Amino acid sequence: MFLAKVIGSIVVTQKTLSLQGKKLLILSPVSMHGDIVQNAEHVAVDDVGAGIGDLVLASHGNSAREVFRDDNRGIDCAIVGIIDGISNN
Amino acid sequence: MFLAKVIGSIVVTQKTLSLQGKKLLILSPVSMHGDIVQNAEHVAVDDVGAGIGDLVLASHGNSAREVFRDDNRGIDCAIVGIIDGISNN
Amino acid sequence: MFLAKVIGSIVVTQKTLSLQGKKLLILSPVSMHGDIVQNAEHVAVDDVGAGIGDLVLASHGNSAREVFRDDNRGIDCAIVGIIDGISNN
Amino acid sequence: MFLAKVIGSIVVTQKTLSLQGKKLLILSPVSMHGDIVQNAEHVAVDDVGAGIGDLVLASHGNSAREVFRDDNRGIDCAIVGIIDGISNN
Amino acid sequence: MFLAKVIGSIVVTQKTLSLQGKKLLILSPVSMHGDIVQNAEHVAVDDVGAGIGDLVLASHGNSAREVFRDDNRGIDCAIVGIIDGISNN
Repeated sequence: MFLAKVIGSIVVTQKTLSLQGKKLLILSPVSMHGDIVQNAEHVAVDDVGAGIGDLVLASHGNSAREVFRDDNRGIDCAIVGIIDGISNN
Repeated sequence: MFLAKVIGSIVVTQKTLSLQGKKLLILSPVSMHGDIVQNAEHVAVDDVGAGIGDLVLASHGNSAREVFRDDNRGIDCAIVGIIDGISNN
Repeated sequence: MFLAKVIGSIVVTQKTLSLQGKKLLILSPVSMHGDIVQNAEHVAVDDVGAGIGDLVLASHGNSAREVFRDDNRGIDCAIVGIIDGISNN
Repeated sequence: MFLAKVIGSIVVTQKTLSLQGKKLLILSPVSMHGDIVQNAEHVAVDDVGAGIGDLVLASHGNSAREVFRDDNRGIDCAIVGIIDGISNN
Repeated sequence: MFLAKVIGSIVVTQKTLSLQGKKLLILSPVSMHGDIVQNAEHVAVDDVGAGIGDLVLASHGNSAREVFRDDNRGIDCAIVGIIDGISNN
Protein backbone atom coordinates (compact mmCIF):
# COMPACT_ATOMS: atom_id res chain seq x y z
CA MET A 1 0.00 0.00 0.00
CA PHE A 2 1.13 3.61 -0.27
CA LEU A 3 0.60 6.92 1.51
CA ALA A 4 -1.28 9.51 -0.53
CA LYS A 5 -3.15 12.78 -0.32
CA VAL A 6 -6.55 13.23 -1.95
CA ILE A 7 -6.08 16.20 -4.29
CA GLY A 8 -9.13 16.10 -6.53
CA SER A 9 -12.04 14.27 -8.02
CA ILE A 10 -13.16 13.51 -11.56
CA VAL A 11 -16.46 13.53 -13.35
CA VAL A 12 -16.84 10.64 -15.78
CA THR A 13 -20.23 10.30 -17.43
CA GLN A 14 -19.29 7.72 -20.04
CA LYS A 15 -17.64 4.84 -18.20
CA THR A 16 -17.39 1.10 -17.99
CA LEU A 17 -20.30 -0.63 -16.27
CA SER A 18 -18.46 -1.62 -13.11
CA LEU A 19 -17.52 1.99 -12.25
CA GLN A 20 -21.12 3.22 -12.22
CA GLY A 21 -22.01 4.77 -8.88
CA LYS A 22 -18.50 4.66 -7.47
CA LYS A 23 -16.65 7.74 -6.15
CA LEU A 24 -13.44 8.40 -8.11
CA LEU A 25 -10.77 10.47 -6.36
CA ILE A 26 -7.36 11.69 -7.53
CA LEU A 27 -4.45 10.76 -5.28
CA SER A 28 -0.93 12.08 -5.15
CA PRO A 29 1.55 9.75 -3.46
CA VAL A 30 3.29 11.40 -0.48
CA SER A 31 6.46 10.58 1.39
CA MET A 32 6.39 9.70 5.09
CA HIS A 33 7.08 13.36 5.80
CA GLY A 34 4.16 14.54 3.70
CA ASP A 35 6.06 15.63 0.60
CA ILE A 36 3.96 15.22 -2.52
CA VAL A 37 5.45 13.22 -5.39
CA GLN A 38 4.72 15.46 -8.40
CA ASN A 39 3.08 14.21 -11.61
CA ALA A 40 2.43 10.73 -10.26
CA GLU A 41 -1.32 10.92 -9.70
CA HIS A 42 -3.52 7.85 -9.39
CA VAL A 43 -7.30 7.66 -9.63
CA ALA A 44 -8.77 5.47 -6.91
CA VAL A 45 -12.19 4.21 -5.89
CA ASP A 46 -12.98 5.22 -2.33
CA ASP A 47 -14.00 2.55 0.20
CA VAL A 48 -13.76 4.53 3.45
CA GLY A 49 -15.48 7.90 3.00
CA ALA A 50 -12.36 9.94 2.20
CA GLY A 51 -12.50 13.51 0.91
CA ILE A 52 -10.30 16.20 -0.64
CA GLY A 53 -7.29 17.00 1.54
CA ASP A 54 -7.33 13.73 3.50
CA LEU A 55 -4.13 11.76 4.03
CA VAL A 56 -5.01 8.20 3.05
CA LEU A 57 -3.75 4.66 2.63
CA ALA A 58 -4.24 3.22 -0.86
CA SER A 59 -3.81 -0.17 -2.52
CA HIS A 60 -2.87 -1.19 -6.07
CA GLY A 61 -3.84 -3.88 -8.52
CA ASN A 62 -5.89 -7.00 -7.92
CA SER A 63 -5.71 -6.38 -4.19
CA ALA A 64 -7.50 -3.06 -4.67
CA ARG A 65 -10.12 -4.63 -6.89
CA GLU A 66 -10.95 -7.33 -4.40
CA VAL A 67 -11.89 -4.71 -1.81
CA PHE A 68 -15.16 -4.27 -3.68
CA ARG A 69 -17.61 -7.15 -3.46
CA ASP A 70 -19.96 -6.08 -6.22
CA ASP A 71 -18.97 -5.76 -9.89
CA ASN A 72 -15.36 -4.66 -9.48
CA ARG A 73 -13.93 -5.15 -12.97
CA GLY A 74 -11.62 -2.33 -14.07
CA ILE A 75 -10.71 -1.15 -10.55
CA ASP A 76 -6.95 -1.19 -9.94
CA CYS A 77 -6.60 1.35 -7.11
CA ALA A 78 -8.58 1.78 -3.90
CA ILE A 79 -8.52 4.01 -0.84
CA VAL A 80 -8.49 1.55 2.07
CA GLY A 81 -7.90 3.81 5.09
CA ILE A 82 -7.82 7.38 6.39
CA ILE A 83 -4.56 8.03 8.23
CA ASP A 84 -4.82 9.50 11.74
CA GLY A 85 -1.13 9.60 12.47
CA ILE A 86 2.35 8.51 11.42
CA SER A 87 5.02 7.55 13.92
CA ASN A 88 8.70 6.81 13.44
CA ASN A 89 9.25 5.06 16.72
CA MET B 1 -6.37 3.95 -12.58
CA PHE B 2 -4.56 6.82 -14.28
CA LEU B 3 -5.39 9.94 -16.26
CA ALA B 4 -4.31 9.83 -19.90
CA LYS B 5 -4.75 11.46 -23.25
CA VAL B 6 -5.43 9.43 -26.38
CA ILE B 7 -2.62 10.38 -28.76
CA GLY B 8 -2.75 7.75 -31.47
CA SER B 9 -3.83 4.38 -32.71
CA ILE B 10 -2.01 1.37 -34.08
CA VAL B 11 -2.61 -1.03 -36.92
CA VAL B 12 -1.72 -4.61 -36.03
CA THR B 13 -2.57 -7.22 -38.63
CA GLN B 14 -0.70 -10.12 -37.10
CA LYS B 15 -1.85 -10.41 -33.50
CA THR B 16 -2.79 -12.84 -30.78
CA LEU B 17 -6.26 -14.31 -31.08
CA SER B 18 -7.84 -12.44 -28.18
CA LEU B 19 -7.01 -9.00 -29.64
CA GLN B 20 -8.87 -9.65 -32.93
CA GLY B 21 -11.54 -7.02 -33.52
CA LYS B 22 -10.54 -4.82 -30.59
CA LYS B 23 -9.66 -1.11 -30.96
CA LEU B 24 -6.08 -0.41 -29.82
CA LEU B 25 -5.31 3.17 -28.81
CA ILE B 26 -2.06 4.80 -27.67
CA LEU B 27 -2.28 6.67 -24.36
CA SER B 28 0.05 9.18 -22.81
CA PRO B 29 -0.35 9.52 -19.04
CA VAL B 30 -1.15 13.11 -18.02
CA SER B 31 -0.89 14.94 -14.72
CA MET B 32 -3.97 16.38 -13.02
CA HIS B 33 -3.17 19.67 -14.76
CA GLY B 34 -3.01 18.08 -18.17
CA ASP B 35 0.77 17.91 -18.58
CA ILE B 36 1.78 14.94 -20.71
CA VAL B 37 4.34 12.53 -19.27
CA GLN B 38 6.76 12.10 -22.20
CA ASN B 39 7.90 8.70 -23.51
CA ALA B 40 5.60 6.72 -21.22
CA GLU B 41 2.99 5.59 -23.72
CA HIS B 42 0.64 2.69 -23.11
CA VAL B 43 -1.46 0.81 -25.62
CA ALA B 44 -4.97 0.18 -24.32
CA VAL B 45 -8.10 -1.57 -25.50
CA ASP B 46 -11.04 0.84 -25.59
CA ASP B 47 -14.24 -0.05 -23.72
CA VAL B 48 -16.08 3.28 -23.86
CA GLY B 49 -15.90 4.69 -27.38
CA ALA B 50 -12.90 6.99 -26.87
CA GLY B 51 -11.10 8.73 -29.73
CA ILE B 52 -7.92 10.67 -30.50
CA GLY B 53 -7.58 13.75 -28.29
CA ASP B 54 -9.92 12.52 -25.53
CA LEU B 55 -8.91 12.79 -21.88
CA VAL B 56 -9.61 9.35 -20.44
CA LEU B 57 -9.44 7.15 -17.38
CA ALA B 58 -7.42 3.95 -17.86
CA SER B 59 -6.77 0.79 -15.85
CA HIS B 60 -3.79 -1.55 -15.65
CA GLY B 61 -3.18 -5.25 -15.31
CA ASN B 62 -5.64 -7.97 -14.43
CA SER B 63 -8.22 -5.34 -13.56
CA ALA B 64 -8.07 -4.03 -17.13
CA ARG B 65 -8.34 -7.51 -18.57
CA GLU B 66 -11.43 -8.35 -16.56
CA VAL B 67 -13.30 -5.42 -18.12
CA PHE B 68 -13.71 -7.55 -21.23
CA ARG B 69 -16.07 -10.51 -20.92
CA ASP B 70 -15.10 -12.32 -24.11
CA ASP B 71 -11.65 -13.76 -24.79
CA ASN B 72 -9.52 -11.21 -22.92
CA ARG B 73 -6.14 -12.93 -22.74
CA GLY B 74 -3.21 -10.58 -23.35
CA ILE B 75 -5.04 -7.39 -22.42
CA ASP B 76 -3.27 -5.47 -19.63
CA CYS B 77 -4.56 -1.93 -20.18
CA ALA B 78 -8.08 -0.64 -20.80
CA ILE B 79 -9.81 2.70 -21.30
CA VAL B 80 -12.62 2.63 -18.73
CA GLY B 81 -13.98 6.18 -18.87
CA ILE B 82 -14.02 9.48 -20.75
CA ILE B 83 -13.32 12.37 -18.38
CA ASP B 84 -15.77 15.28 -18.44
CA GLY B 85 -14.08 17.32 -15.77
CA ILE B 86 -11.49 17.42 -13.01
CA SER B 87 -12.05 19.30 -9.76
CA ASN B 88 -9.66 20.07 -6.93
CA ASN B 89 -12.27 20.95 -4.34
CA MET C 1 10.69 -9.48 -3.12
CA PHE C 2 12.70 -6.46 -2.03
CA LEU C 3 15.01 -5.44 0.81
CA ALA C 4 13.60 -2.74 3.07
CA LYS C 5 14.01 -1.06 6.42
CA VAL C 6 11.06 -0.52 8.75
CA ILE C 7 11.00 3.24 9.35
CA GLY C 8 7.61 3.90 10.90
CA SER C 9 4.09 2.85 11.61
CA ILE C 10 0.69 4.37 10.90
CA VAL C 11 -2.50 4.74 12.88
CA VAL C 12 -5.59 4.20 10.75
CA THR C 13 -8.90 4.21 12.63
CA GLN C 14 -11.20 4.34 9.63
CA LYS C 15 -10.19 1.49 7.31
CA THR C 16 -11.49 -1.21 5.05
CA LEU C 17 -12.79 -4.31 6.83
CA SER C 18 -9.96 -6.64 5.86
CA LEU C 19 -7.28 -4.43 7.46
CA GLN C 20 -8.89 -4.48 10.92
CA GLY C 21 -6.48 -5.83 13.52
CA LYS C 22 -3.48 -5.95 11.22
CA LYS C 23 -0.17 -4.17 11.99
CA LEU C 24 0.70 -1.60 9.30
CA LEU C 25 4.37 -0.62 9.00
CA ILE C 26 6.11 1.89 6.73
CA LEU C 27 9.00 0.48 4.70
CA SER C 28 11.76 2.21 2.81
CA PRO C 29 13.40 0.08 0.14
CA VAL C 30 17.16 -0.29 0.70
CA SER C 31 19.98 -1.31 -1.60
CA MET C 32 22.07 -4.39 -0.89
CA HIS C 33 24.52 -2.09 0.90
CA GLY C 34 21.84 -0.62 3.13
CA ASP C 35 21.35 2.70 1.33
CA ILE C 36 17.78 3.92 1.72
CA VAL C 37 15.87 4.80 -1.46
CA GLN C 38 14.34 8.19 -0.58
CA ASN C 39 10.64 9.00 -1.05
CA ALA C 40 9.70 5.49 -2.11
CA GLU C 41 7.91 4.31 1.03
CA HIS C 42 5.52 1.37 1.05
CA VAL C 43 3.01 0.44 3.73
CA ALA C 44 3.06 -3.28 4.46
CA VAL C 45 1.18 -5.71 6.67
CA ASP C 46 3.57 -7.56 8.97
CA ASP C 47 3.54 -11.36 9.03
CA VAL C 48 6.73 -12.06 10.99
CA GLY C 49 6.84 -9.82 14.06
CA ALA C 50 9.01 -7.06 12.60
CA GLY C 51 9.57 -3.71 14.34
CA ILE C 52 10.97 -0.24 13.71
CA GLY C 53 14.60 -0.37 12.56
CA ASP C 54 14.51 -3.97 11.34
CA LEU C 55 15.94 -4.89 7.95
CA VAL C 56 13.25 -6.99 6.29
CA LEU C 57 12.21 -8.89 3.19
CA ALA C 58 8.93 -7.71 1.65
CA SER C 59 6.62 -8.90 -1.13
CA HIS C 60 4.34 -7.04 -3.54
CA GLY C 61 0.94 -7.57 -5.10
CA ASN C 62 -1.18 -10.69 -5.12
CA SER C 63 1.73 -12.66 -3.73
CA ALA C 64 1.73 -10.46 -0.64
CA ARG C 65 -2.01 -10.76 -0.25
CA GLU C 66 -1.95 -14.54 -0.35
CA VAL C 67 0.36 -14.63 2.67
CA PHE C 68 -2.68 -13.91 4.80
CA ARG C 69 -5.21 -16.70 5.10
CA ASP C 70 -8.06 -14.72 6.64
CA ASP C 71 -9.83 -11.82 4.91
CA ASN C 72 -6.92 -10.39 2.91
CA ARG C 73 -8.65 -8.08 0.44
CA GLY C 74 -6.82 -4.79 -0.06
CA ILE C 75 -3.40 -6.03 1.04
CA ASP C 76 -0.73 -5.51 -1.66
CA CYS C 77 2.48 -5.51 0.40
CA ALA C 78 3.66 -7.83 3.18
CA ILE C 79 6.72 -8.27 5.36
CA VAL C 80 7.68 -11.92 4.85
CA GLY C 81 11.05 -12.17 6.63
CA ILE C 82 13.49 -10.48 9.01
CA ILE C 83 16.96 -10.41 7.48
CA ASP C 84 19.81 -11.77 9.62
CA GLY C 85 22.56 -11.25 7.09
CA ILE C 86 23.46 -10.42 3.50
CA SER C 87 26.35 -12.08 1.70
CA ASN C 88 27.91 -11.34 -1.65
CA ASN C 89 29.71 -14.60 -2.03
CA MET D 1 0.40 -3.10 -23.47
CA PHE D 2 3.49 -1.26 -24.66
CA LEU D 3 5.30 -0.53 -27.91
CA ALA D 4 8.68 -2.22 -28.23
CA LYS D 5 11.38 -3.15 -30.67
CA VAL D 6 12.85 -6.67 -30.77
CA ILE D 7 16.58 -6.15 -30.23
CA GLY D 8 17.88 -9.60 -29.47
CA SER D 9 17.34 -13.14 -28.35
CA ILE D 10 18.70 -15.27 -25.55
CA VAL D 11 19.90 -18.83 -25.27
CA VAL D 12 18.85 -20.47 -22.02
CA THR D 13 19.65 -24.17 -21.70
CA GLN D 14 18.86 -24.56 -18.02
CA LYS D 15 15.36 -23.20 -17.48
CA THR D 16 12.12 -23.77 -15.65
CA LEU D 17 9.89 -26.45 -17.15
CA SER D 18 7.22 -24.15 -18.55
CA LEU D 19 9.71 -22.20 -20.71
CA GLN D 20 10.93 -25.31 -22.60
CA GLY D 21 10.42 -24.90 -26.33
CA LYS D 22 9.37 -21.26 -26.19
CA LYS D 23 11.13 -18.48 -28.14
CA LEU D 24 12.58 -15.83 -25.81
CA LEU D 25 13.19 -12.39 -27.33
CA ILE D 26 14.67 -9.23 -25.83
CA LEU D 27 12.50 -6.13 -26.18
CA SER D 28 13.33 -2.48 -25.74
CA PRO D 29 10.32 -0.26 -25.07
CA VAL D 30 9.98 2.50 -27.66
CA SER D 31 8.09 5.78 -27.65
CA MET D 32 5.33 6.45 -30.16
CA HIS D 33 7.96 8.13 -32.34
CA GLY D 34 10.25 5.14 -32.25
CA ASP D 35 12.77 6.39 -29.68
CA ILE D 36 14.24 3.50 -27.71
CA VAL D 37 14.08 3.70 -23.92
CA GLN D 38 17.64 2.76 -22.91
CA ASN D 39 18.44 0.09 -20.30
CA ALA D 40 14.83 -0.98 -19.85
CA GLU D 41 14.89 -4.30 -21.67
CA HIS D 42 12.27 -6.99 -21.14
CA VAL D 43 12.46 -10.63 -22.14
CA ALA D 44 9.22 -11.83 -23.71
CA VAL D 45 7.79 -15.05 -25.06
CA ASP D 46 6.70 -14.64 -28.67
CA ASP D 47 3.16 -15.56 -29.68
CA VAL D 48 3.03 -14.06 -33.18
CA GLY D 49 6.17 -14.99 -35.10
CA ALA D 50 8.16 -11.80 -34.41
CA GLY D 51 11.84 -11.44 -35.24
CA ILE D 52 14.82 -9.16 -34.60
CA GLY D 53 14.10 -5.58 -35.71
CA ASP D 54 10.31 -5.87 -35.62
CA LEU D 55 8.19 -3.20 -33.95
CA VAL D 56 5.81 -5.10 -31.70
CA LEU D 57 3.03 -4.85 -29.17
CA ALA D 58 3.78 -6.53 -25.84
CA SER D 59 1.83 -7.34 -22.68
CA HIS D 60 2.86 -7.61 -19.03
CA GLY D 61 2.04 -9.78 -16.07
CA ASN D 62 -0.79 -12.26 -15.68
CA SER D 63 -2.32 -10.99 -18.90
CA ALA D 64 0.82 -12.02 -20.78
CA ARG D 65 0.86 -15.41 -19.12
CA GLU D 66 -2.72 -16.17 -20.04
CA VAL D 67 -1.91 -15.78 -23.73
CA PHE D 68 -0.34 -19.22 -23.60
CA ARG D 69 -2.72 -22.12 -23.16
CA ASP D 70 -0.18 -24.81 -22.30
CA ASP D 71 2.03 -24.76 -19.20
CA ASN D 72 2.53 -21.00 -18.84
CA ARG D 73 3.97 -20.68 -15.34
CA GLY D 74 6.79 -18.14 -15.08
CA ILE D 75 5.80 -16.12 -18.15
CA ASP D 76 5.22 -12.44 -17.34
CA CYS D 77 5.77 -10.79 -20.74
CA ALA D 78 4.47 -11.72 -24.19
CA ILE D 79 4.65 -10.36 -27.72
CA VAL D 80 1.00 -10.14 -28.79
CA GLY D 81 1.21 -8.29 -32.10
CA ILE D 82 3.45 -7.05 -34.91
CA ILE D 83 2.80 -3.38 -35.58
CA ASP D 84 2.12 -2.38 -39.20
CA GLY D 85 1.60 1.28 -38.56
CA ILE D 86 1.09 4.02 -35.99
CA SER D 87 -1.23 6.95 -36.58
CA ASN D 88 -1.77 10.10 -34.56
CA ASN D 89 -5.06 11.09 -36.11
CA MET E 1 10.94 -11.41 -17.63
CA PHE E 2 14.17 -9.46 -17.10
CA LEU E 3 17.90 -10.04 -17.37
CA ALA E 4 19.74 -9.99 -14.05
CA LYS E 5 22.98 -10.90 -12.36
CA VAL E 6 23.02 -12.81 -9.08
CA ILE E 7 24.99 -10.58 -6.71
CA GLY E 8 24.30 -12.02 -3.28
CA SER E 9 22.23 -14.12 -0.97
CA ILE E 10 20.38 -13.44 2.25
CA VAL E 11 19.96 -15.29 5.52
CA VAL E 12 16.45 -15.05 6.90
CA THR E 13 15.73 -17.14 9.99
CA GLN E 14 12.36 -15.63 10.88
CA LYS E 15 10.21 -15.85 7.75
CA THR E 16 6.75 -16.60 6.49
CA LEU E 17 5.86 -20.28 6.29
CA SER E 18 5.92 -20.58 2.51
CA LEU E 19 9.54 -19.40 2.23
CA GLN E 20 10.92 -22.14 4.51
CA GLY E 21 13.56 -24.20 2.72
CA LYS E 22 13.74 -21.98 -0.36
CA LYS E 23 16.99 -20.39 -1.61
CA LEU E 24 16.76 -16.58 -1.64
CA LEU E 25 19.15 -14.76 -3.98
CA ILE E 26 19.71 -11.05 -4.59
CA LEU E 27 19.45 -9.97 -8.22
CA SER E 28 20.55 -6.79 -9.93
CA PRO E 29 18.81 -6.11 -13.23
CA VAL E 30 21.29 -5.78 -16.11
CA SER E 31 20.98 -4.26 -19.56
CA MET E 32 21.41 -6.36 -22.67
CA HIS E 33 25.07 -5.30 -22.68
CA GLY E 34 25.61 -6.42 -19.11
CA ASP E 35 25.48 -3.01 -17.41
CA ILE E 36 24.13 -3.31 -13.87
CA VAL E 37 21.20 -1.08 -12.93
CA GLN E 38 22.31 0.33 -9.56
CA ASN E 39 20.13 0.26 -6.43
CA ALA E 40 17.36 -1.75 -8.05
CA GLU E 41 17.94 -5.11 -6.38
CA HIS E 42 15.28 -7.80 -6.22
CA VAL E 43 15.22 -10.88 -4.01
CA ALA E 44 14.17 -13.97 -5.93
CA VAL E 45 13.53 -17.62 -5.18
CA ASP E 46 15.73 -19.84 -7.33
CA ASP E 47 14.14 -22.57 -9.47
CA VAL E 48 17.10 -23.55 -11.65
CA GLY E 49 20.20 -23.97 -9.48
CA ALA E 50 21.69 -20.49 -10.03
CA GLY E 51 24.62 -19.15 -8.02
CA ILE E 52 26.48 -15.92 -7.29
CA GLY E 53 27.81 -14.33 -10.49
CA ASP E 54 25.40 -16.08 -12.85
CA LEU E 55 23.55 -14.13 -15.54
CA VAL E 56 19.93 -15.22 -15.19
CA LEU E 57 16.40 -14.76 -16.47
CA ALA E 58 13.89 -13.74 -13.79
CA SER E 59 10.12 -13.34 -13.58
CA HIS E 60 7.89 -11.01 -11.55
CA GLY E 61 4.59 -11.21 -9.75
CA ASN E 62 1.97 -13.94 -9.93
CA SER E 63 3.83 -15.52 -12.82
CA ALA E 64 6.87 -15.99 -10.59
CA ARG E 65 4.77 -17.42 -7.80
CA GLU E 66 3.15 -20.00 -10.03
CA VAL E 67 6.54 -21.47 -10.89
CA PHE E 68 6.49 -23.15 -7.49
CA ARG E 69 3.99 -25.97 -7.08
CA ASP E 70 4.17 -26.31 -3.29
CA ASP E 71 3.16 -23.56 -0.84
CA ASN E 72 4.13 -20.50 -2.86
CA ARG E 73 2.41 -17.66 -1.01
CA GLY E 74 4.56 -14.55 -0.68
CA ILE E 75 6.82 -15.29 -3.65
CA ASP E 76 6.79 -12.46 -6.22
CA CYS E 77 10.11 -13.01 -8.01
CA ALA E 78 11.73 -16.18 -9.37
CA ILE E 79 14.87 -17.15 -11.26
CA VAL E 80 13.56 -19.15 -14.22
CA GLY E 81 16.66 -19.64 -16.37
CA ILE E 82 20.45 -19.40 -16.52
CA ILE E 83 21.53 -17.46 -19.61
CA ASP E 84 24.09 -19.10 -21.88
CA GLY E 85 24.24 -16.36 -24.46
CA ILE E 86 22.68 -13.18 -25.80
CA SER E 87 22.48 -12.42 -29.48
CA ASN E 88 21.43 -9.28 -31.31
CA ASN E 89 20.88 -10.87 -34.68
